[in-house]
Amino acid sequence: MKLINTLAEMQALKHPEGFKIGFVPTMGYLHEGHLSLVDASKKDCDLTIVSIFVNPAQFGENEDLDSYPRDMERDLSLLKARGVDYVFFPDAQMMYPNGYRTWVEVEGLSDILCGASRKGHFRGVCTVVLKLVNIVKPHFMYMGDKDYQQQSILRIMLKDLNLDTTIVGCPIVREQDGLAKSSRNVYLDPNNRQIALCLYRALIQAQKEVRSGILVAETLAEHAAALIESTGARVDYVKIIDSRDLNFPNEVNEHSRMVIAAYVGKTRLIDNMLLVSP
Amino acid sequence: MKLINTLAEMQALKHPEGFKIGFVPTMGYLHEGHLSLVDASKKDCDLTIVSIFVNPAQFGENEDLDSYPRDMERDLSLLKARGVDYVFFPDAQMMYPNGYRTWVEVEGLSDILCGASRKGHFRGVCTVVLKLVNIVKPHFMYMGDKDYQQQSILRIMLKDLNLDTTIVGCPIVREQDGLAKSSRNVYLDPNNRQIALCLYRALIQAQKEVRSGILVAETLAEHAAALIESTGARVDYVKIIDSRDLNFPNEVNEHSRMVIAAYVGKTRLIDNMLLVSP
Repeated sequence: MKLINTLAEMQALKHPEGFKIGFVPTMGYLHEGHLSLVDASKKDCDLTIVSIFVNPAQFGENEDLDSYPRDMERDLSLLKARGVDYVFFPDAQMMYPNGYRTWVEVEGLSDILCGASRKGHFRGVCTVVLKLVNIVKPHFMYMGDKDYQQQSILRIMLKDLNLDTTIVGCPIVREQDGLAKSSRNVYLDPNNRQIALCLYRALIQAQKEVRSGILVAETLAEHAAALIESTGARVDYVKIIDSRDLNFPNEVNEHSRMVIAAYVGKTRLIDNMLLVSP
Repeated sequence: MKLINTLAEMQALKHPEGFKIGFVPTMGYLHEGHLSLVDASKKDCDLTIVSIFVNPAQFGENEDLDSYPRDMERDLSLLKARGVDYVFFPDAQMMYPNGYRTWVEVEGLSDILCGASRKGHFRGVCTVVLKLVNIVKPHFMYMGDKDYQQQSILRIMLKDLNLDTTIVGCPIVREQDGLAKSSRNVYLDPNNRQIALCLYRALIQAQKEVRSGILVAETLAEHAAALIESTGARVDYVKIIDSRDLNFPNEVNEHSRMVIAAYVGKTRLIDNMLLVSP
């Protein structure tokens, strides 16, 4: 496994003709969710590149940039064990040098859901991913379904900007009790770790309600929100979206996905699930 | 010379290994200014690609998108005679299909000079050029110095977004009497064609004043504006910029460039010149 920490070296990298390049962009502090993306890339591609970069541009002023968990040594050992070919870890000064001023925005989808409470978040995500794609030039980029809005926005960005990179969405990886794996789970004390399960339980409840014939999106969202608030967690949003375009349907169909963001203590967690099992 | 009018064909194009690809993006209705860019590319590169696309995204609501001059047949014959390898001419529906929503902006430089009177213009320019660069994947992109702000903004965009394309700026091509070549010169009736010379004359006057020791930017700009207004043309802006960063210096030095936009009748013309001859 080769480590690369300069843009010039990453951009100059030549791969054998015809090799399929898989890319997994991460902010580090890796868990099985990230590693499942590595596995998917290893399965499809001839060469797998992982980036580790805690992107300041996607954090708001009052968010957890400074405290965001980091453990480079552990990350590298996990990636090596998984057979990754290259790890690219630029620093913020390289990615956003003095005078940096170019930003990319996917309009209309960046100010809803997570974008409503995280102003500028998706602008920062889009910009860094476009930069990483230009630097790494992958054929496939692997992203978890947990950040479903992010994945959808980035897919539109790559298509609109005519890039040759295809996003492959991979299933959410969960703890045994159902909590979605997240680097931010480390913030949860034992009590909040229990409370955090409410996101998963609200999604499962909604799936059951749909099976029992409740199809009105607003009703399902209200019930999910009530379950979450009853545990002491605080709802940021509970919505039902169409997986294909992030529109908000009135009635659930096979494309409907419930998306949730909630604060458990000070920790903001997200989760989502298709409401009709495929 | 091969004509390509689909994105898929352009994106799939394979060039011989090691070939240098030169690209000249245009809005058609070609003149010697454009053709000088083709010549520069032919000189430096193994393969020259020209695009012709009147980009709706860079025109404001009250601008001349509909009346912008077009003559595809003549353009193709000129490009063929000049030895161009590929001409790419997508249509607007391909470039901006229904649901298109991704935009790129170079902040701080897009709302001054031409950006001040053409809201959204540079956002449209940046977005289309990023798309074209992603589709054509050139090593070098040739742009005229006439659109100096555009060239400067695009150079920053390509650098900020880590693209492997280098912009090559080429000198302004002028009519015998000094008027900068422009597709929009066709709008000028004989009287306005005479008046239009005032931009060039104002630049030459400023160069002379600098040689005579007048170095205060504001004074030089005032004199240039007075000359232009005395002809019946209407100044949009006359400014002195630093060629390297588009900042506005108080005193002229070897990097100082006078930039002018003025209305001659209804036609908006631009021109610029270094004030100290290199």
